[in-house]
Amino acid sequence: MDSRTVMNDITTRARRAAAKLAVMDTDQKNKALRAMAAAIEKSREKIKKANEADISRAVKNRKPAAFIDRLKLDDKRIDGMAAMLRDVAGLADPVGEVLEARERPNGLLIEKVRVPIGVIGIIYESRPNVTADCVSLCLKSGNAVILRGGSDALSSNKAINDALKQGAVEKGLDEGAFILIEDTSRQLVEAMLLAEGGIDLIMPRGGESLIREVSEKSRIPVIKHYKGICHVYVDQKADLDMAEKICLNAKVQRPGVCNAMETMLVHEKAAEEFLPRVLGKLGEAGVAVKGCPRTRQILGEGVEKADEKDFATEWLDLVLNVRVVGSIYEAVEHITRFGSAHSDAIVTEDAAAAREFLRRVDSAAVYVNASTRFTDGGEFGKGAEIGISTDKLHARGPMGLEELCTYKYVVRGSGQIRT
Amino acid sequence: MDSRTVMNDITTRARRAAAKLAVMDTDQKNKALRAMAAAIEKSREKIKKANEADISRAVKNRKPAAFIDRLKLDDKRIDGMAAMLRDVAGLADPVGEVLEARERPNGLLIEKVRVPIGVIGIIYESRPNVTADCVSLCLKSGNAVILRGGSDALSSNKAINDALKQGAVEKGLDEGAFILIEDTSRQLVEAMLLAEGGIDLIMPRGGESLIREVSEKSRIPVIKHYKGICHVYVDQKADLDMAEKICLNAKVQRPGVCNAMETMLVHEKAAEEFLPRVLGKLGEAGVAVKGCPRTRQILGEGVEKADEKDFATEWLDLVLNVRVVGSIYEAVEHITRFGSAHSDAIVTEDAAAAREFLRRVDSAAVYVNASTRFTDGGEFGKGAEIGISTDKLHARGPMGLEELCTYKYVVRGSGQIRT
Repeated sequence: MDSRTVMNDITTRARRAAAKLAVMDTDQKNKALRAMAAAIEKSREKIKKANEADISRAVKNRKPAAFIDRLKLDDKRIDGMAAMLRDVAGLADPVGEVLEARERPNGLLIEKVRVPIGVIGIIYESRPNVTADCVSLCLKSGNAVILRGGSDALSSNKAINDALKQGAVEKGLDEGAFILIEDTSRQLVEAMLLAEGGIDLIMPRGGESLIREVSEKSRIPVIKHYKGICHVYVDQKADLDMAEKICLNAKVQRPGVCNAMETMLVHEKAAEEFLPRVLGKLGEAGVAVKGCPRTRQILGEGVEKADEKDFATEWLDLVLNVRVVGSIYEAVEHITRFGSAHSDAIVTEDAAAAREFLRRVDSAAVYVNASTRFTDGGEFGKGAEIGISTDKLHARGPMGLEELCTYKYVVRGSGQIRT
Repeated sequence: MDSRTVMNDITTRARRAAAKLAVMDTDQKNKALRAMAAAIEKSREKIKKANEADISRAVKNRKPAAFIDRLKLDDKRIDGMAAMLRDVAGLADPVGEVLEARERPNGLLIEKVRVPIGVIGIIYESRPNVTADCVSLCLKSGNAVILRGGSDALSSNKAINDALKQGAVEKGLDEGAFILIEDTSRQLVEAMLLAEGGIDLIMPRGGESLIREVSEKSRIPVIKHYKGICHVYVDQKADLDMAEKICLNAKVQRPGVCNAMETMLVHEKAAEEFLPRVLGKLGEAGVAVKGCPRTRQILGEGVEKADEKDFATEWLDLVLNVRVVGSIYEAVEHITRFGSAHSDAIVTEDAAAAREFLRRVDSAAVYVNASTRFTDGGEFGKGAEIGISTDKLHARGPMGLEELCTYKYVVRGSGQIRT
């Protein structure tokens, strides 16, 4: 069978399941999620064994240590998957929520009601726990999901999928509610990206090159959780103790994630006092600095030069660009030009400056006097997160169950006709 | 200059204007809209003259009468444009509205705030009043807009654009707030569809082939207001007087629009009584019927046969498909298979049947006991409409000012860091 036929069969099964999921009671979905958690725990040994096969192949193929760490499933991670499934069972069901209601002068009652999107396609790399994450969130939000993980994690993904399926089918879920694609060929993923009408939304999860390739080839809408080039701007009227604490946290608390600070912008009137003290602390934490000419004037020529390419780089590491700016507007301009519209913060005691920054910086999350590290579904009170969108359409910032839904208008009348 | 360079210049100007529009006061936007209305009125003769040039070219090229009617700008339509600009000035400003607010346990105050999308691209055909419609709605919602109308309407579009620009610049708007592309070459429209980063959203307005082509070629997200294959299902427990009134209205009140009924589904238990009476009335109104085998049994072999192709056709004319179904589930299945997820109605006195229909039909608007003709921004109380989306992401159903916006999270703290 050619790839399009295979994909057509998959999307037909998913679409049929989606119609059932869309009208399924909350209780039945929660029971399934709990049964799936139990099945993961029961299949612990099988999952670990499958994962060992993936790991030894990765070792043989001389994959880097970070890759192998992402791939690895130990008892703690398996417990984490089961806990996550139970957590999602405990979240409120977004489906059926009435977002707006209005009665029109002609007596029509119009409600805007939250409903599932339909069929979601996930394309991901080597983290097998993504399988359980995505299945749980899609199921709770009433969507069917088609999963295409990386070939390196195929044994692990199959073992997880088998366990989840066992729990799901036990509670009466349609077998098409989540479908793991076992053929990891290039042709099949391309057929997936062309399956308009069969899949409603594609979400790529992984590195920048995967996301870029999916975005370019997809004929289905894509929502990306992209890289984060996040900024903290220390205003001339900042509380410098607070600024120091926030900058340290945003850079070093977990440098490898998308909401960590990559560039610190400092108002020239604060720079002479602030730069030496904060960079002392950052240095103690092992952060290497790349500075603009003014930064290097203040801190000395020992500081490496930062060029435009640096300002456009997501380091994901203990490296920090530093630039001194003449005004809040220069800071906004820098962020607009080099940022990734993810998370950007101002530290200031000046309400007018805060207001200008919040209005003018066009990012998914804009902060005043807090660390950029808070951009996260859990921290935002969403309960769970399927990713962070740096796109502007449909969903922006942390995406949880609500963002996996669309809406429809439900209109009730008593015989109204249009004149 | 090659097309990509031209487009790059256009999107740079639009992006710069968008940054200003995003933070513009409501009052200034409204003043500009009113000045633009006055400028349209003042330029009435110029616009009519420019339109005459388009019309005579269309006549020379033997364009059909319907085409020429869409192209035509008479005094009434020019008055309509000016009135529409003033109406939009009177609508509430969606920008800055706080959609959600929550205080987190750590004291962070998180607000979800409505903000403009940025730069909107509109690709349309021969209706020059679309120019004024789109400019007004994009301006009010704080977006810059790039307009690419059809070559047949270029003189008219230029005259309208000149008038609008005069009013806008008078009130201090940036010249890039709306940009009419005067080069209507294929290359330039293709460059427009590839201008990722320069344009945030493309909305095609026109016939199915235009929309299909734009969707296929665009690398920028597209929201479509697509065709409408709308259904009315007359349940076995329908009030048949009401059903007759609704079916007549949905079919004949304005057959050429996307929310008109194309297929009537009738429960078999209602068919023998209902079909003869409603089809008598539809016949008087000039409607030609295409029926399923059971319909033809009841009404006689004089009724033309309906095949699958008919059920998938948007007639936009006094033609109606009729099918008798055995249950509400058969009706839902028909709608799922042949419908366009636009607007579908059930007529019934049975609350359980209504509930099943509303839950199971996955369309932008689902009705009980009302005509499908109400799917419209004005009728839904949105004040204005830029189109109707049959997509599921970002916006569904009638799109007004709110749907031309996205949101961002504004987070206010007092030095919070993540631990």
